[in-house]
Amino acid sequence: MSLLVVGSIALDSVETPFGRRNEVLGGSATYFSTAAGFFGPVRLVATVGEDFPQEHVEFLAGRGVDLAGLERRPGRTFRWRGRYEFDLNAAQTLETQLNVFADFRPKLPQGFGGSEYVFLGNIDPDLQRQVLDQVKAPRFVACDTMNFWISSKRESLLRTLRRVDLLFVNDAEARQLAEEHNVVQAARRILSFGPRALVVKRGEYGALFFFGEHVFATSAYPLEAIFDPTGAGDSFAGGFMGYLARRRREDLPTMRKAIVVGSVLASFAVERFSLERLTALTQEEIHDRYAQFRQLTHFDELELDAFADAKTGR
Amino acid sequence: MSLLVVGSIALDSVETPFGRRNEVLGGSATYFSTAAGFFGPVRLVATVGEDFPQEHVEFLAGRGVDLAGLERRPGRTFRWRGRYEFDLNAAQTLETQLNVFADFRPKLPQGFGGSEYVFLGNIDPDLQRQVLDQVKAPRFVACDTMNFWISSKRESLLRTLRRVDLLFVNDAEARQLAEEHNVVQAARRILSFGPRALVVKRGEYGALFFFGEHVFATSAYPLEAIFDPTGAGDSFAGGFMGYLARRRREDLPTMRKAIVVGSVLASFAVERFSLERLTALTQEEIHDRYAQFRQLTHFDELELDAFADAKTGR
Repeated sequence: MSLLVVGSIALDSVETPFGRRNEVLGGSATYFSTAAGFFGPVRLVATVGEDFPQEHVEFLAGRGVDLAGLERRPGRTFRWRGRYEFDLNAAQTLETQLNVFADFRPKLPQGFGGSEYVFLGNIDPDLQRQVLDQVKAPRFVACDTMNFWISSKRESLLRTLRRVDLLFVNDAEARQLAEEHNVVQAARRILSFGPRALVVKRGEYGALFFFGEHVFATSAYPLEAIFDPTGAGDSFAGGFMGYLARRRREDLPTMRKAIVVGSVLASFAVERFSLERLTALTQEEIHDRYAQFRQLTHFDELELDAFADAKTGR
Repeated sequence: MSLLVVGSIALDSVETPFGRRNEVLGGSATYFSTAAGFFGPVRLVATVGEDFPQEHVEFLAGRGVDLAGLERRPGRTFRWRGRYEFDLNAAQTLETQLNVFADFRPKLPQGFGGSEYVFLGNIDPDLQRQVLDQVKAPRFVACDTMNFWISSKRESLLRTLRRVDLLFVNDAEARQLAEEHNVVQAARRILSFGPRALVVKRGEYGALFFFGEHVFATSAYPLEAIFDPTGAGDSFAGGFMGYLARRRREDLPTMRKAIVVGSVLASFAVERFSLERLTALTQEEIHDRYAQFRQLTHFDELELDAFADAKTGR
């Protein structure tokens, strides 16, 4: 498969009700690659500073990530510091140091331009289009974004959306982007902006997938403890795109399965801090939890005689 | 089938972003009976005042509801006035006039004591047990409650829970009752209080069903407009209990189907104000939407070769 991701690599400092971690590996491209890596090799384009620990580079290389597009620049690596309260759906950002990420100008190395599957992580929509300009004939492009770009770079974001097949957002972002409260109507509006598919992530409640007039809903896996929600969205996208690129199909049944694969990867990602759980994860565990999702959500057909007799009411 | 409901009958005045209604038919027993009535006759125990419009009595009788337990007392009917903002998950109560409901002492008429299926609507847990004392050999008892009883009558509520098979609550109530934030752990705790099953309603996100170690998750039907969420929970309970009583089975596959039937009824109830949509609803529409829920949530098995080759990473 040929799957390209462009996004951030960060050193995250995170506090949750379950503990804290200081300067651990994070960033959208990192979570995405690790999740997608279960399905095949991933090509990564990102930037880090001089201080980026070599062990993290080796970790990614060891996951089969092609690091030809990893640029090491003078300065410090992107840092994010955040906290989650008991409502683990919303992160509270305490500090963002863009550092080398501030001047990130994604440049695809030789060979990456032929990628068929492309994931544009949550970066400036101008840069997202610069990436697309360097890909010859993308087969399926997905992108992520956030409230900051929706409000500050709306026109640029809309230009990007005209060139992507699928958008990943959470429900607040969907409402903001569509300027519409009802999520079904918001989805319809967003699909009119260009993408033919939309994933609305709803945290612990699951996700909705819109594809034309078609809707698919997944519940999130009910976990007894969510240690650290950081990276859940990018792990979801990584599972989704990794599976799609692996199958090299974008029909509806395949995309529905990809949504569940994404939910599975996200459910594992949040079970430990940083990439701890994804690192220890096996293909068999992914397969098993996918099967558990079927157990969790499937139900039998309704009998034809389920109702009272229309004449007697009995 | 023999299905008994004890609860409120009210005149509701409701404001939502879509409009308002003044003194329309409402109350837990009303929504429950109307939803459950699609599956067979319902026995109702409730009280109304002298001012209760006769047309509402005739409406319920016309739905096949056995009104032998409907007591008309001196005074005014229970009134509730509330408002929903754009976040339709939470009602804002503007006014509650208990009126004759304040002295409600449910008394089962002859014949109702033999009911097999019992739904205890959201009333004082002391009264809920008084109802159970009058039922000879209930086969399956479900109950609803709310934050008010959880905080003000906790001990009484716990006594009631020891005698019920299934509890319906929303997620905030589940957390409050269990004194535990995580919904899976909250569910386990609540099941240790007595009920063998628990439904956690999550509004527009769907519902979780817990039965011993077993979990089932449904998404809510994605609606383009939710006109009036009043009665959604009681319509859910009515669909669930009506279907269960109709099938006269409480095995796991039947209860999973009952959860979806409940979701279907709730999804219709909120499409119009008061009971307007449930009144116009047909068995065929219920059957169709049930099938749409399968379309919405089912997905195929994962291929065994979905993953990268473990040796080569390709």
